[in-house]
Amino acid sequence: MKNVIPLEELRSRDPKSLIKSADGFLLDWDGCCAIDNVLVPEAAVFLRAHQNRLAIVSNNSTHTPDEMRAILDKSGIELPPERILLAGMFAIKRARDLGLNRAMIIGSPAMKALAQRSGIEVVREEAQVVILMRDTRVTYAALERAANCLVGGAKLVVANPDGSHRGANARIRLETGAFHAALEAAVDLSQAETEIIGKPSEGFFREACRIIGTSPHRTVMLGDNPDTDIKGAVQIGMPCLLVAPTPQEFFARLI
Amino acid sequence: MKNVIPLEELRSRDPKSLIKSADGFLLDWDGCCAIDNVLVPEAAVFLRAHQNRLAIVSNNSTHTPDEMRAILDKSGIELPPERILLAGMFAIKRARDLGLNRAMIIGSPAMKALAQRSGIEVVREEAQVVILMRDTRVTYAALERAANCLVGGAKLVVANPDGSHRGANARIRLETGAFHAALEAAVDLSQAETEIIGKPSEGFFREACRIIGTSPHRTVMLGDNPDTDIKGAVQIGMPCLLVAPTPQEFFARLI
Repeated sequence: MKNVIPLEELRSRDPKSLIKSADGFLLDWDGCCAIDNVLVPEAAVFLRAHQNRLAIVSNNSTHTPDEMRAILDKSGIELPPERILLAGMFAIKRARDLGLNRAMIIGSPAMKALAQRSGIEVVREEAQVVILMRDTRVTYAALERAANCLVGGAKLVVANPDGSHRGANARIRLETGAFHAALEAAVDLSQAETEIIGKPSEGFFREACRIIGTSPHRTVMLGDNPDTDIKGAVQIGMPCLLVAPTPQEFFARLI
Repeated sequence: MKNVIPLEELRSRDPKSLIKSADGFLLDWDGCCAIDNVLVPEAAVFLRAHQNRLAIVSNNSTHTPDEMRAILDKSGIELPPERILLAGMFAIKRARDLGLNRAMIIGSPAMKALAQRSGIEVVREEAQVVILMRDTRVTYAALERAANCLVGGAKLVVANPDGSHRGANARIRLETGAFHAALEAAVDLSQAETEIIGKPSEGFFREACRIIGTSPHRTVMLGDNPDTDIKGAVQIGMPCLLVAPTPQEFFARLI
């Protein structure tokens, strides 16, 4: 691990000068650019000003890049789809890249359709891989089938490690990590190959930098979650800014 | 911890003499007396011979004692309902004994009805207690409501700690402990009062002994699960026998 900037130093550094000196930016979506998929106006100003050198990097595993592009488009921000990196989409891509084409998927209908369009056969039993994403319609039966696929030797790809996130009115929303914990309690996963895709996973940040064509230590991560956004950036020596106390206040100070 | 008999010593002890010298017996249900709720004939012989001094002690949280009594009745074994101790039923009893009468329940319709008959108000939000049992119809929304009740200060009563059990064809069946793990991943339970009812919990064994009127070190636990049946018995100094390799073979040797 090289070029790690201690968090304290980062906090004391002037955000404006850090932004000015950066080659590019990675931005979290929920709680940073948007609240419940409504773009924060102050964040929109930042996105518009830097749209040629940024990527969205989000642990969201229920939406497709097209859905977020539509939201950005309405505010006059044009972002090519490859610069919207979502953990769910990358989990599917990862299974396909590994050649694991028979997948049992815990995920929304939109994500299952995305998997099928990318050439994956979506199966209920005897899968080569279990892809775990946030699924608000998950059933007991689906989790049980996933457990049995894993006992049968399937690899496990988890879209993100988050156990929950806060929704409107600070209400707890169950996340992918909660399903992962349930499966870990049900079956011995010590022998199963498990890969966790989203932030703070190093590969996710590096892929985003590759796409916008910058090196990690010349790119700034902006996010509101210390455990994923900040931890992930720090571990690969990427400067980062904690979006706090609210995205409105944070981005207003940068303008 | 007094009077703990090392497992090795237990294994070498003659099961027949242990049975002969005991004042009473606690028997596990699944994988011991019954397989998928069908009574094992060899176990039935044992149950019939000792029916005046035994209790069933099971981590089952989906059935009521009446359902098991009906199965026993058919084989001519009469067991009063209080001598069938099931973890689900005891989780409900525990909440009621604590005076926590507004409960959010993850559990089967039969168990929710049992809770209501015992004077508990079954609510969806703002519960005083979350009672967690095995529920094959559990939804994402129900787990999310449970998480929010816990964040709101509800106590957590977990029927049993099992993450899974094996059903027919050795298929993994998700158990209560898997839901518990999901909630632990979603919310910080370090501040929540959590009580786990079923085996290996000490109280569950002691209550069974109280009901049949024996002391733990003069009672023998018979069960197939080293983590719950054997561990629970050993920790209170109760002699125990591991029902293996199958209940048929085990009980045939005792007859």
